[in-house]
Amino acid sequence: MRVAGLISGTSLDGIDVAIIDVNEALTPLAWATIPYPPGVRREILSVTNAIAHTGLVARLNVLVGELFAKALIDVCSRFSIPLESIDLIGSHGQTIFHEGIPSACNGFMIACTLQIGESSVIAERTGIPVVSDFRQGDLAAGGQGAPLVPLLDFHLFRDDERMRIALNLGGIANISVIPAKSVIEDLIAFDTGPSNMVLDSLAQRMSLPYDMNGEQARKGRVDEELLKRLLDDPYYKITGPKSAGREQYGEEFTALFSGLSSQDALATATELTACTVSDAIQRYPGKKDIIAAGGGVHNPFLMERLATRFGQEVRTTAEWGIPVDAKEAIAFAYLASSHAQHRASNVANATGARKAVILGKLTNPFPDDRGAVPWI
Amino acid sequence: MRVAGLISGTSLDGIDVAIIDVNEALTPLAWATIPYPPGVRREILSVTNAIAHTGLVARLNVLVGELFAKALIDVCSRFSIPLESIDLIGSHGQTIFHEGIPSACNGFMIACTLQIGESSVIAERTGIPVVSDFRQGDLAAGGQGAPLVPLLDFHLFRDDERMRIALNLGGIANISVIPAKSVIEDLIAFDTGPSNMVLDSLAQRMSLPYDMNGEQARKGRVDEELLKRLLDDPYYKITGPKSAGREQYGEEFTALFSGLSSQDALATATELTACTVSDAIQRYPGKKDIIAAGGGVHNPFLMERLATRFGQEVRTTAEWGIPVDAKEAIAFAYLASSHAQHRASNVANATGARKAVILGKLTNPFPDDRGAVPWI
Repeated sequence: MRVAGLISGTSLDGIDVAIIDVNEALTPLAWATIPYPPGVRREILSVTNAIAHTGLVARLNVLVGELFAKALIDVCSRFSIPLESIDLIGSHGQTIFHEGIPSACNGFMIACTLQIGESSVIAERTGIPVVSDFRQGDLAAGGQGAPLVPLLDFHLFRDDERMRIALNLGGIANISVIPAKSVIEDLIAFDTGPSNMVLDSLAQRMSLPYDMNGEQARKGRVDEELLKRLLDDPYYKITGPKSAGREQYGEEFTALFSGLSSQDALATATELTACTVSDAIQRYPGKKDIIAAGGGVHNPFLMERLATRFGQEVRTTAEWGIPVDAKEAIAFAYLASSHAQHRASNVANATGARKAVILGKLTNPFPDDRGAVPWI
Repeated sequence: MRVAGLISGTSLDGIDVAIIDVNEALTPLAWATIPYPPGVRREILSVTNAIAHTGLVARLNVLVGELFAKALIDVCSRFSIPLESIDLIGSHGQTIFHEGIPSACNGFMIACTLQIGESSVIAERTGIPVVSDFRQGDLAAGGQGAPLVPLLDFHLFRDDERMRIALNLGGIANISVIPAKSVIEDLIAFDTGPSNMVLDSLAQRMSLPYDMNGEQARKGRVDEELLKRLLDDPYYKITGPKSAGREQYGEEFTALFSGLSSQDALATATELTACTVSDAIQRYPGKKDIIAAGGGVHNPFLMERLATRFGQEVRTTAEWGIPVDAKEAIAFAYLASSHAQHRASNVANATGARKAVILGKLTNPFPDDRGAVPWI
């Protein structure tokens, strides 16, 4: 089965596209990030965790669907992959709201999430069945709706001999802990704390889009006192399924660094990521491989600090044929293939769900001359 | 196949539930309307075609899903129908925005719609597969996303001998024109103009929730001059797929009646409905049956005026075993069964779509011990 994965992250940089053949390796045939038109990025921001007209939400849902479809069509054309050779699309969409912890509402305990990027539009423009809305099913089963990448980590990295830690250095850092010889139920995954989200906003104080190669952080000095204070946050002590709210590392958090020079602030924030990631990993004793992906892998200073803290080399998913920037899109392609095989794909120890569920909803194009989906 | 249909209309009175066995007649085994808790109705209104926090939209999406699931479970229990005997749910959800006419947006022509009532929640609570989000597919194919009931009208009323007109007297009045011996492509359907929406808001000027049995209208006198002016609206002359915006019969429209006594206003508005419906129907010459459903059927004065205008009796869907208040819920159960059979279910002459499409998205519960949906 050939599957395309589509996702745009909360950074709103653009639409990640990856095309895989579903097999042992999952090395993508093609992958790319297609930027959003600048005006669209601004419009999406205006409805993200914000007050907006429901008509604008409805309109952007369709527009993002059009752009997702176009991104896939463009990538297929650029890499000379016939669109008709793709059997299925897994589309995560664009998150505009997420609240994984339930709260009381009219007699129900309600946790919720909202992704836009209309699957009916993607199916109609491409002629390919689409699985979408992956997070809702896990939330309905009492989970936090995140993280969903652990299923892919298990598929790629589980080993009979060694424990594997899949580390993602995105806006937030998270890990999947995959013991040697484990079955899926043994897998543990959670957000460890901040990563690029804080580094990027501190770099923006210096009018840089981000701290290229960690050069500014490398010139700074860690403020040990502030670091110690930051590490006192009880979040880092909690075990079990936990997700770090994007809110908790926004403006208010970066303001804590305001007494420091920008370079010292970057050095201290880098050390905070290195500490919190390595403390989280060191809870799982034994020989292990640490396998990183995400934008943070492009920051050699952060990678050095992590290696020093761990006392061992940090490998990357690229060694396994998974480009570090394509892993999430590959994950949603893989989750779509699980849906197609009618397999559950949430990991209860990662999301906190009461039970396994089939993630995603299926939207079929018509006519479907490939004869798929005889229903009953 | 036994299917449940769930819908809440724009009047927000509550959740219509109907349970059918899919066969020639589609007479429901059970049907009921379960009112929304009053606080929920108010909250939904606050996000309907309005400015609201996207977090509230996300939260109400889940809450309405919970209430839809509960409504079905309650109806099953009240009518002693085992939940496990239901094979499929068709859930329309609750519309919070609809704009069927496309307008330019970042280089795309975009029409859009937004329904809430999370299908993953309904599937998880009931253990039954859910087809939802019926309007999006038609919009993606260039249609207005409405009306979708004509497929049911065709199934129920198409006749070898006589033309049939299925008339729905809801907030807005609409008709499906089904010529004798027709195939689905011959079917025409559109909104004829206002109905209960205007009558109800004029009754509310008299502090009545609505004009029970049309008693106040019957005591009034038609203002012929105002009626003539209202009938001059070019909307009534357009042919082909057209839908009357709910906006166009709101406050501004009822203000046109402000020079009249409440009873005269009601009499005039009733005559407007009778005229516009009968003018629309008279465009299709020949012997025909007129078969009405919707809340307006409970208004004997409106039914008399219609019969007088037509010069013939107005029958109701009840004669065909379809309770006049359950027709829409039955329609979405029937559309779900079409989806399950991988059949297209929009009617191009009704919605204006370029092509036939499979309406809806499928959400499967897990585990599904009925062994449905082997994918590929």
